[in-house]
This record gives sequence, structure tokens and C-alpha cells, in this order.
Amino acid sequence: MKPAHGFTALPLDEVYTLIEPGPVVLLATRGRAGDNVMAMSWHMMVEFTPPRIACVVSGGDFSFTALRANRACVIGIPPLAMAAQVVKIGNCSGRNVDKFATFDIPAYPAPQVKAPLIGGCFANLECRVIDTRLVNRFNLFVLEVVAAWQDPVITDRRTIHHKGYGHFAVDGTDITLPSRMP
Amino acid sequence: MKPAHGFTALPLDEVYTLIEPGPVVLLATRGRAGDNVMAMSWHMMVEFTPPRIACVVSGGDFSFTALRANRACVIGIPPLAMAAQVVKIGNCSGRNVDKFATFDIPAYPAPQVKAPLIGGCFANLECRVIDTRLVNRFNLFVLEVVAAWQDPVITDRRTIHHKGYGHFAVDGTDITLPSRMP
Repeated sequence: MKPAHGFTALPLDEVYTLIEPGPVVLLATRGRAGDNVMAMSWHMMVEFTPPRIACVVSGGDFSFTALRANRACVIGIPPLAMAAQVVKIGNCSGRNVDKFATFDIPAYPAPQVKAPLIGGCFANLECRVIDTRLVNRFNLFVLEVVAAWQDPVITDRRTIHHKGYGHFAVDGTDITLPSRMP
Repeated sequence: MKPAHGFTALPLDEVYTLIEPGPVVLLATRGRAGDNVMAMSWHMMVEFTPPRIACVVSGGDFSFTALRANRACVIGIPPLAMAAQVVKIGNCSGRNVDKFATFDIPAYPAPQVKAPLIGGCFANLECRVIDTRLVNRFNLFVLEVVAAWQDPVITDRRTIHHKGYGHFAVDGTDITLPSRMP
């Protein structure tokens, strides 16, 4: 099943090429009160295929309860063009604000998980929680990406990397070196 | 105790500002045969203070045995100027190569942990392993940074971010947005 918006499938074995560089991402969940989205920088790849991602979602974050209850989320990768929205998303809580409506971000039904796909992101990863053993001590969840989508309309895929207190490094020059690593 | 080289202390509560943007880092360990270093991109912050970092070190990596046995390592953050050395480090194994000698990288004694500080890196983090519950399933270690050093001589602190197969994004423009997040 494909999502309603004009997303195209992103091969699962390419997911790591988007997460490994360490961009700020958005994490969407579906709670009792509706859909919510937060900004996140504490995440890493754990496995290439099937793609698995670890992330830290604080127990103080409104998203925590829905993530633990549904064992599902969507990770969206916002381009530089969304930077101002990303910071606004990070500056408030879903407890008080309907962020999708307030910041004019479309939410699309995800085919496989109980969480929305995030409009404006050039990639959206549908994830299920597969390990919670480190949640109590570190708020660390391990996710498996079960489906991945990209928005072919978004061609400038430069991302932002958070250096603290609203300072971000934007992707600059690309360099290629003769690596034997995937 | 301070290291012999001209490193200066990096405040522990600033460590996350270096790891959170997702640069390629180097991980140094001390094994029976000597010191070894590998390139790593699968890491994330887990806690601000004390700084805690999760990382994935494959069971196939030569560093895995020493990391598990000593429960200690050093994470070095290489500047763009080290990119060629970083890729060479990633292209071979410590099983066959003394990488510090071969790639002309100085190793300095670390005051607190059984692993060397890495010359050429603008920051070095002395780390102890504090949780191994996800090692068997995911090769995921949780580390605590017990001391951190910076090299004041290295002023160009642009980093590289791996996008797969030797393609790297180099830090470009810095932008600042009015964030309420640390």
C-alpha cells in the first residue's frame, strides 16, 4: 500500500545513508489527543538491513507516552528549508500545542504504523519499537524501519546538524574518498 | 592529571555539542597486541551531564574485543584535515595493521582510561563502558565520558559526516535560530 501523497518508495537498504550523517530529524507519534511531532538529534543507526535505529526520547517529552504505548513512530528528515519550523517544533510541547496545525505541517496517513507521515520532509521512515530494555535507565528505544518513503518534489536535500542552543551546521561541500566501507 | 601533549580540558557539559551534530569519529582501544583505532559513525548522545554516549561496534571489528575486555575507549573527533587518514583507518583492520604507526597518527597516554588519546583530533573523550545489555543483540555499548580534552592548536573544527561509500558532507554554513533547547 502506498501513502496518499506523492511519496515514492525509498529502498530500505538506503535508509542508513540518510541517518548516518547525523541530521536533526522529526519524530511523529499518535497519542490519545492526536498526532504530535518533536525535533530529535539523539539517534544513530544500529543495523543496515533491516534498518534499525536507536534513539533517545526523554521521559519528559510528550511523545514518550505515545511511543511506548503504540510501539510505533515515524522519523522524518527535514531539509534546510524546514529549519525555522524544526526549531519552532522543538521550542514547544504537544501538551499545549497542536504542532501540525500551528506550524502548518501536513500530516499524511502512514500505510503501516500508527503515526503520521510528515509533510515537508524529504524522507519519512515508518518505525516499530523492537527493544525497550534501555528505556528505564536511558530513555533509549531501538526501532526497526518497516517502510520508507521519499518526496521526489524536494530536491535540495541539505540537512541541518545541531551544535547546541540553536546553532546548526548546514551541509556544505560533498567530498568523496576511496572508502571500502558501506 | 593532565595528558603530556598540550591538550586543555574540555568542560564535560560541552561534550554533547561535539557529538550531537553527528560527525565521523575515531574510536581508540588498547588490546593485547597494542593500541588500535577505528572510524565510527554509529553513535549518539544519551545524556548531557555526565555525558553519556551510545555506540555500535560490530563484533567483526578488531576493536570489539578490547572494548569489551577493558570496558574503556577514547573517542576522538577528527577535523576535515584528517579526512584522508580517517578513510584509511576505516579501510583496514587492526588485526593486520598498526594503524597509529602506518598512518602517522600520534598516540598519547590518557590520564584515566586504558586507551590512547588520538593526535590530530581536536577533541578526545576518555570513556568507560557503563552498560552492555544490548551488546549481544545489537553490538550497542553505552559509554560515560569521564574526562575530555581539546587541542587548542587545531582551530578549523569543521567535521565530516558519512553518507555511505566514502561520500561525506563537510560542515558548511553555520546558522543560528532562536531555540529554547540546550
